[in-house]
Amino acid sequence: MAIRLDVSGMLRQAVPTGPDAAALDALAPQLVAAVASFESRRSAGVLGFRELEAQAAERARVLDWAASARRGLDDVIVLGIGGSALGAVCLRTALLPRDWNARSSEQREGRPRLHVLDNVDPRSVAGLLDLVDLARSRVLVVSKSGSTAETMAQYLLVRDRLAKAGLTAREHLAFITDPEKGALRKLAAAEGIPTFDVPANVGGRFSVLSPVGTVPAALLGLDVQGLVDGAIAMRDRCTSSALRENPALAYAALQWHANESAGQGAHVLMPYSDALRDLGPWFVQLWAESLGKRRADGQHVGPTPIAAVGATDQHAQVQLFMEGPRDKTVTFVDVESHPDDLPIPHGDGAPADLAYLRGHTFGELLRAECRATAAALARGGRPTMTLRVSQVDAWHVGGLFMFFELATIYAAGLYGIDPLDQPGVELGKQLTYYQFGHPEWQGMREVWEALPASDPNWVL
Amino acid sequence: MAIRLDVSGMLRQAVPTGPDAAALDALAPQLVAAVASFESRRSAGVLGFRELEAQAAERARVLDWAASARRGLDDVIVLGIGGSALGAVCLRTALLPRDWNARSSEQREGRPRLHVLDNVDPRSVAGLLDLVDLARSRVLVVSKSGSTAETMAQYLLVRDRLAKAGLTAREHLAFITDPEKGALRKLAAAEGIPTFDVPANVGGRFSVLSPVGTVPAALLGLDVQGLVDGAIAMRDRCTSSALRENPALAYAALQWHANESAGQGAHVLMPYSDALRDLGPWFVQLWAESLGKRRADGQHVGPTPIAAVGATDQHAQVQLFMEGPRDKTVTFVDVESHPDDLPIPHGDGAPADLAYLRGHTFGELLRAECRATAAALARGGRPTMTLRVSQVDAWHVGGLFMFFELATIYAAGLYGIDPLDQPGVELGKQLTYYQFGHPEWQGMREVWEALPASDPNWVL
Repeated sequence: MAIRLDVSGMLRQAVPTGPDAAALDALAPQLVAAVASFESRRSAGVLGFRELEAQAAERARVLDWAASARRGLDDVIVLGIGGSALGAVCLRTALLPRDWNARSSEQREGRPRLHVLDNVDPRSVAGLLDLVDLARSRVLVVSKSGSTAETMAQYLLVRDRLAKAGLTAREHLAFITDPEKGALRKLAAAEGIPTFDVPANVGGRFSVLSPVGTVPAALLGLDVQGLVDGAIAMRDRCTSSALRENPALAYAALQWHANESAGQGAHVLMPYSDALRDLGPWFVQLWAESLGKRRADGQHVGPTPIAAVGATDQHAQVQLFMEGPRDKTVTFVDVESHPDDLPIPHGDGAPADLAYLRGHTFGELLRAECRATAAALARGGRPTMTLRVSQVDAWHVGGLFMFFELATIYAAGLYGIDPLDQPGVELGKQLTYYQFGHPEWQGMREVWEALPASDPNWVL
Repeated sequence: MAIRLDVSGMLRQAVPTGPDAAALDALAPQLVAAVASFESRRSAGVLGFRELEAQAAERARVLDWAASARRGLDDVIVLGIGGSALGAVCLRTALLPRDWNARSSEQREGRPRLHVLDNVDPRSVAGLLDLVDLARSRVLVVSKSGSTAETMAQYLLVRDRLAKAGLTAREHLAFITDPEKGALRKLAAAEGIPTFDVPANVGGRFSVLSPVGTVPAALLGLDVQGLVDGAIAMRDRCTSSALRENPALAYAALQWHANESAGQGAHVLMPYSDALRDLGPWFVQLWAESLGKRRADGQHVGPTPIAAVGATDQHAQVQLFMEGPRDKTVTFVDVESHPDDLPIPHGDGAPADLAYLRGHTFGELLRAECRATAAALARGGRPTMTLRVSQVDAWHVGGLFMFFELATIYAAGLYGIDPLDQPGVELGKQLTYYQFGHPEWQGMREVWEALPASDPNWVL
């Protein structure tokens, strides 16, 4: 059981833009400052995602409740968006067989499907409600604030459907929300709806190991304790301000350095693993929303995360990574063990020019392609890292979550921004409220009317 | 039925980095050159994706074959990667109800599921073969060259499984490949396996309206003629060298200009539509692999495409788009009609602070959010475009495919590169062959051994 970060390919010894020993030494004061900034956030109590021991009682309550709530369940439906959705999707893909929701109840050994409704497109809202039988479903309403427009609109619809079907909210809903505040908390108290806490100091994009992720995981029978143990093991490896002793700090610092010193601000995450396919979008939210910020000095900073999957994207994005502008770093995830590996058969009728595949397995092909792509990028002078993961299971997935979350906080220290806010999305929310006639936001009329109008001459 | 491109938000009248009238006039010679370059490719016969009339006979053969082949079919399986996979996934998501593969046979009205195996991860290869019954499946082997390692490895496995189950290749396979060349063509001739042509002048990432997309579409009962009609209608709107008369040229030119003049090389495509969710990855391959190139003068050029989905990504990537570096353009797709729109119910027990949702529909909320996000970006001085699409159906989806394909060829003229090759992926392929002992590639040993090794001091 191990997660190792190989950063060789980021350094001068491998690529001309990478830092040499002197440049790494020169980073020391900034690393110390980034760790100090991390520590001050930690001691201010705002890094609740690390404090997994403090959530043990609530986790036990989740597991206890789920053990009975999952009985007789065909479908678990998450109403949630962004950080309330991406972790659950990632857990489903990583820890259950491919196409879980397409499997029959027997193929699932009686465990429920998991649907994540992360949009308000009527086609998919209606489509999901057509697909499931609410009488055999549990709908998780996931919103820390209890005021997320998309999630609450979905809630109102599901509520209405439950009432029309004569089903009780208590039996078919559960809320995952702030321990004290918001509309869901009030409803829960009034109606006895099972409700689990997102700690006040755990933000949406850092919430996958809180009930936001653990409630759906527990209902699906996933190894919640394994996730938490893996995360704690990673956390405890990442405390030093010495690069070589803190992989999360090393990842953050080398990405930031590539961005600052060489304009390499596009940060690709490319697992060679279908199980880790949805780690990409989860990472994209974490890295983009935490680090893409207007700094106090007015500068607009932050890397642009990009999700890719190996070997698939060798036939899509890798041409750009190899020959396009030198503005990217690529982090591979190489899975070392494939317990369900398969030989590539090579019978009598097989074409002669495929003879090179004979005697190999699919897992070998996947890993050979990962090495080949890393090698080709290195030969082109392009910086890469590789996360080597023994296998994909709850322990390692929990470790990966914690690794990227910690790296994000360190990177924020280096970029000089607050990783925990998202001020840039407020204006869009307010302009939506304004259009919907929300009484508190009618002051936005002036902003709305001052906007450049669509020019009919330029509608083609 | 219409697709309109609103480019107002890219221009100086909306954003400070946009071109003003004089700058647009000054582009004229480059636009003329881009159209001339397009025309010279067209007359050289390499833009087969446009020549949809020339493919009419093969299309009729596809439809004819599929009408009988789909009978009694539970599952269609595509073995294909990159351009052989992304179009089929996009068609499934766009033109069938949400979660098609999770629906029961009755919910699908007897139409088959569609699985796309676009990787060699043994977990997903084994997982898919566990899920389906080959006796009730048709497996489409999609490889223009007939030598794609990933696809051919999958083919060897399926072939072996069919033989072990006593099923004939002719009844359960079909090939989609070059009309003359390659291993699949030889096998097809020897064994009478149904085979459809990818025209020699249609490259993988431009192949969605060839049998690569139309065979799976026809087996699922989708409106193939609608796709083609929509594509032809778009093609015929896009011929002029005047920006206002050629939306594909306008898209290409404004994206290229933003990149060249303002460093805005990250090109986001953000449909506010779950049906168009998988248009993003299809576009990413097209734009990245076609334009990310080493130019003849040695410069590394090309934009970085980014897929996003509205409203979902307002809670993930939009913070970065709003406040991060000014290196992006965002193209929205706004769907004007939602035939399955749903009111947001607002019964007695609804929380008072959700009153603003009362009397509105999900479709209205989605579109209000699209306008709000576009407005917020404009207010921040960030360039945007909007594709307004009357509705999501085969005609409009066909039109969108053609729009982006034409834009890609125009953009190639402006960037000064060949949109139809992908030389950057060859080295990775050769290094994979080398590792697998392929006799033709043992000369790569020198390259392999000269690569910088992993440094154990930097494996953390």
